[in-house]
Amino acid sequence: MRSTNRQWILRKRPTGDIQPGDLELVERSKPVPKKGEFLVRNVYLSLDPTNRIWMSDMEQYMPPVGIGDVMRGGTLGMVEISNHPDYEVGDLVVPGLGGWQDYTIGAASGPMAARKLTRLPGIPMTAYMSALGFTGATAYFGLMDIGQPKAGETVVVSAAAGAVGQIVGQIARIKGCRVIGLASTEAKCNYVVKELGFNACINYKQTDVSKALKKVCPKGIDIDFENAGGRILDAVLENINLHARIVLCGLISQYNAEGPVPGPYNFTNILMKRARVEGFIILDYVHRFDEFMAQMAQWLMTGQVKDRVDITEGLENAVDALQKLFTSANTGKLLIQIAEEP
Amino acid sequence: MRSTNRQWILRKRPTGDIQPGDLELVERSKPVPKKGEFLVRNVYLSLDPTNRIWMSDMEQYMPPVGIGDVMRGGTLGMVEISNHPDYEVGDLVVPGLGGWQDYTIGAASGPMAARKLTRLPGIPMTAYMSALGFTGATAYFGLMDIGQPKAGETVVVSAAAGAVGQIVGQIARIKGCRVIGLASTEAKCNYVVKELGFNACINYKQTDVSKALKKVCPKGIDIDFENAGGRILDAVLENINLHARIVLCGLISQYNAEGPVPGPYNFTNILMKRARVEGFIILDYVHRFDEFMAQMAQWLMTGQVKDRVDITEGLENAVDALQKLFTSANTGKLLIQIAEEP
Repeated sequence: MRSTNRQWILRKRPTGDIQPGDLELVERSKPVPKKGEFLVRNVYLSLDPTNRIWMSDMEQYMPPVGIGDVMRGGTLGMVEISNHPDYEVGDLVVPGLGGWQDYTIGAASGPMAARKLTRLPGIPMTAYMSALGFTGATAYFGLMDIGQPKAGETVVVSAAAGAVGQIVGQIARIKGCRVIGLASTEAKCNYVVKELGFNACINYKQTDVSKALKKVCPKGIDIDFENAGGRILDAVLENINLHARIVLCGLISQYNAEGPVPGPYNFTNILMKRARVEGFIILDYVHRFDEFMAQMAQWLMTGQVKDRVDITEGLENAVDALQKLFTSANTGKLLIQIAEEP
Repeated sequence: MRSTNRQWILRKRPTGDIQPGDLELVERSKPVPKKGEFLVRNVYLSLDPTNRIWMSDMEQYMPPVGIGDVMRGGTLGMVEISNHPDYEVGDLVVPGLGGWQDYTIGAASGPMAARKLTRLPGIPMTAYMSALGFTGATAYFGLMDIGQPKAGETVVVSAAAGAVGQIVGQIARIKGCRVIGLASTEAKCNYVVKELGFNACINYKQTDVSKALKKVCPKGIDIDFENAGGRILDAVLENINLHARIVLCGLISQYNAEGPVPGPYNFTNILMKRARVEGFIILDYVHRFDEFMAQMAQWLMTGQVKDRVDITEGLENAVDALQKLFTSANTGKLLIQIAEEP
């Protein structure tokens, strides 16, 4: 047990890459839960591309984090003190968006109500922040609902070795699709092909992506699960089939941009190929989480889906670790371990 | 009856604006229909933004017109000679894509089979090239199928006084939507508001479109019927609601562009607002034409939909007239009258 609560505070909105001083780690007194509340000791913090969006004042899907506020982030933790009958000490919970801090006051109701988790046999605790968390749900609903894969179709996944990408590709394989990854290193390409069963993977830093896609997708691209944007999306759009679906999940290539970023130069191809581009945020699917959890738990337990995590120890390293997302340095789900697993 | 067949031949692919010499008007002998064929005297030629696409070698939804070939275009004509029992002299037909020429050899089957038309009482012949033709069908299926308007929603229509735009806005009004047009002159704005019943219209050449949209769409934009692209689309994307639908029908602002054109700078808003952008080409809906014809004929006959045409006399003026689309000089459906109405 810690006696204080460390918190990462957003001090100013980053311009371009996050700089020292944009966020500050402060030490505050440990919060005390009131009646009906409970105290959660955060064990894991999820680091996601969207964190960078929340730091900015760009048009976004939630209010940005306020200057002076604790940085927003998903956490997984354990109830340490409870003043609510439904939550017991030792319960594993996702306390809404727990924030970049050691402790979160959990709520039992409202939009940020804490979700109690039941550990399944053989499933590591980290999976609840990855394949069984918002990350896996993003992959699942994005691919299944927006992408609507059919057996035999060709699916391209950008940031293929990233948290969401690795899951998307494996689900698409389960659904009988031909799956092509895009990743930034040979090691990542090897990982998704040899360990996850992708049909092929293109190292986008080493090749002309459009030509490479044409070669490995001789029948064209039916579904693009887009995490990157920029030139990657343009290369994909050059190779889409009639009625292709672009699952617009993320545009990480431009979250650090200063000033306006042009949309894809091959935008007209959306028209010519009667393609559908659909933006997608997992928050819209929370009411269907049970459906996803049941399916994903089964896939994990049978080994049909593998879930790689990339863990950095220590809340104090959160800002540095987040940078890995923007330098393509992570493989799998990026997590901060704030405290030891119970 | 003419004794020769004038044809506009594509001589070279235009770079930027169409230049003299890109197309050439030649005079050839009148074609003779073989057994099973018939000769159609073209009366009206449809001029459409897509004509410019067909002249180019950009990625497109049909093969481009070949160099040396007759320019492709939709026509409406009358059977002058028939060697097919199903087509009689005097029949009004749409002979596939009849081309920029006086005469077309009509086919009775295949993808370019001639469609026989039955004149409805009180409906001018031009309507079969406009509200009752591909133009009206584009408006109808694009709005209804891709846009899926619900009463009370806000619909924005770019190129509002253009061929498709004028019909889209009127259908949206019939469906109980609030309809905002975007047009290039005060006269066009007056036309769509006062004569067609749009709720408002923004002269996009005279104002900051995004601010103007924010003002006239206080509840945001639910549907955008996009004919323009470029800065117009960007202004729309700044003002879209959650789950907005962008019916991507045309991108006329960039058909004359030399070199790559960036996509919308507010592309990220498609993600943030979980919007859907869907490309749409009327050729995919030909099998549902009867449904459209029945509905549109009723709307025209009851006066619920008005159909303005902008007619230029003389096949020899086709190239000059086409330019009106790119200089925003037309109001309503642009047609060339090749021959007198029968």
